[in-house]
Amino acid sequence: MTSSSENLNNPSDITMPSISTKNAISLPPVQYDAPKTEDYYYMNLAIEEAKKGLFTTRPNPAVGCIIVKNNLIIGSGFHPKAGEPHAEVFALRSAVQSVEGSTAYVTLEPCSHTGKTPPCAVALIKSGVARVVIAGLDPNPKVAGRGVDLLLSAGIKVCVGVCQDQAEQLNLGFLKAMRCQMPYVRLKVATSLDGRTAMASGESKWITGPAAREDVQRLRALSGAIITGSQTIIEDNPSLNVRSEQLGVEVGQIPQPKVVILDRRKRLSGVKGIEQSYQVLHNDKAIIYTEDDLSVLLHRLKVDYDIYDVLIEAGSKVSGSFIEAGLVDELIVYQAPCILGHSAQPMITLDIDNLSSQRRFTLKECQRVGTDLRLNFIAQ
Amino acid sequence: MTSSSENLNNPSDITMPSISTKNAISLPPVQYDAPKTEDYYYMNLAIEEAKKGLFTTRPNPAVGCIIVKNNLIIGSGFHPKAGEPHAEVFALRSAVQSVEGSTAYVTLEPCSHTGKTPPCAVALIKSGVARVVIAGLDPNPKVAGRGVDLLLSAGIKVCVGVCQDQAEQLNLGFLKAMRCQMPYVRLKVATSLDGRTAMASGESKWITGPAAREDVQRLRALSGAIITGSQTIIEDNPSLNVRSEQLGVEVGQIPQPKVVILDRRKRLSGVKGIEQSYQVLHNDKAIIYTEDDLSVLLHRLKVDYDIYDVLIEAGSKVSGSFIEAGLVDELIVYQAPCILGHSAQPMITLDIDNLSSQRRFTLKECQRVGTDLRLNFIAQ
Repeated sequence: MTSSSENLNNPSDITMPSISTKNAISLPPVQYDAPKTEDYYYMNLAIEEAKKGLFTTRPNPAVGCIIVKNNLIIGSGFHPKAGEPHAEVFALRSAVQSVEGSTAYVTLEPCSHTGKTPPCAVALIKSGVARVVIAGLDPNPKVAGRGVDLLLSAGIKVCVGVCQDQAEQLNLGFLKAMRCQMPYVRLKVATSLDGRTAMASGESKWITGPAAREDVQRLRALSGAIITGSQTIIEDNPSLNVRSEQLGVEVGQIPQPKVVILDRRKRLSGVKGIEQSYQVLHNDKAIIYTEDDLSVLLHRLKVDYDIYDVLIEAGSKVSGSFIEAGLVDELIVYQAPCILGHSAQPMITLDIDNLSSQRRFTLKECQRVGTDLRLNFIAQ
Repeated sequence: MTSSSENLNNPSDITMPSISTKNAISLPPVQYDAPKTEDYYYMNLAIEEAKKGLFTTRPNPAVGCIIVKNNLIIGSGFHPKAGEPHAEVFALRSAVQSVEGSTAYVTLEPCSHTGKTPPCAVALIKSGVARVVIAGLDPNPKVAGRGVDLLLSAGIKVCVGVCQDQAEQLNLGFLKAMRCQMPYVRLKVATSLDGRTAMASGESKWITGPAAREDVQRLRALSGAIITGSQTIIEDNPSLNVRSEQLGVEVGQIPQPKVVILDRRKRLSGVKGIEQSYQVLHNDKAIIYTEDDLSVLLHRLKVDYDIYDVLIEAGSKVSGSFIEAGLVDELIVYQAPCILGHSAQPMITLDIDNLSSQRRFTLKECQRVGTDLRLNFIAQ
């Protein structure tokens, strides 16, 4: 455990970035090739490829690539892990015949810079592909249209924007972090139908069923960090790790999320020997944050730790603070079909006086999970 | 207004029926014709016919009929209103060629008794149909298999049970009332995501959007009675009537639901001139119920008024009482995508101490209604 990380708890000289969800890149559409009907079909397959890396590529985005020649898929690949080759390289390597003259479908703009691996745009050019279809440009300032420029100047036809929305869903954290210097924040609550998360006594095991709890493993596996409160640690002593065998990847392949514990009242930090008492404190990547400012915390998680996806799993007060500060991008409610009554504990502690001050969301997805519902909302 | 109906408020000598949701009719399957693949297709069309009468047939069930000969639909009809001919008669009348040798699809067992109209089983026999396919038997003790018996003894092939579940959904109230002498009870609440129905101040207009409020008109149009509390009348002065022009039927064709006001503390009953103050009290079919026992009330609504579908639109206390008494068949939650916070008013007032005493439901349907969700739950 990094007790009270110096860095995180000293926010004095931090300037918060201005937050914009707009893509700062302006597209010059005249240069682009028009999309064809079949492009949507193949891009969907490329998106399916990308999903294979969803839990393991952090902090890199999940990317998939399909190579098509004469209506035949001749190669496919995805980016499995930071440090390993990108999707395009795996797809080119897998090709069962010459890719000369083929079309490559990539779910994110091919990179133009040499990072841990050489630029993919160059690999595509060398391979002889005639056309590249891209779901969306990469807002990473190291790329930001330069991948496309390289392809265009090599005389390759480039089509951009095919299935962009679907492809962006795979990398909400990466895209937001590149655009806003802030991670994408998911707030998860498990609640009864009448918005209660525990009985008055604190009893809360379990309100939602095993399928919902298994589904939370997916959320954790998507996250670079889990934020919780010291109260939750003291009351529930959760492990807050990824341990499911049902994610389609070996648990060992998934980078465990960092655990961040909010502890303004210093109930955990600096207490000698307290590491023994709580599961998460055995984790040497756990951080205790004793400061007030939640947006500084989020910004530092992005800047200092390359954490682009944050999951909040906390009690009603911490959850209420993040909502109050307008820092929640997505609210994920696991709703059990039960009534716990008016004396049970509230889902969100947040003092709102009149209807016009309510916090509004937009329903993005609604899914049965066992006997429960999972409702995904985007903050308005 | 029938102030404090003698009948309803004097429950002394009422024996409550034992409630069973089982169909008491035992089927002798050997006599029945086996269903054919096309039967499901045509029965679905008959169900669509039945739906046309959904808001207007009360207290009669909604029934549809299709007549098919040589794979051609030659007639169709539905029961529009109590006192008017049944679906089978309209279908036979509409036939564009001789029905001799045809198959009739009916969503409920044809009646065998002479009520306001002659028995439909006899009409079918006289018409010369060769086969009758029925979704489900009629639990009405006046029919209860006798319609089928008549058909069988006339040498007509009879197939029972095709799309029975779907057909029963049309007449949950009628079927429950015939089987249990109790109406089918729907409890409707409009709530925020965190289970709040009003601000602490009482402000509650509006939590859900116009589409959800329009959808409630559908619920009212399905109901023989709406039950509310005197508190709701005093605070909100609602009209509790059906007034929508979007139900696919003229409002004048829809029997207005009776309004029943629970008023144990006699805040409305016997107060001179109070009819002037509140909209629902202008309605001479409104009833004020000052007794305690809610199950007696429901039973009397069935027995004395032929009310088979009851909708509860009330505050959290009345709603909580019905849930506590186990009298709710279906809970309908209009859930707005907003957070109102912990100081707002609870959805259900119900004192539950521990998780094992929670009230459980099963999700039946989940539907977007404008920006809100409608969740239909069946009580466990």
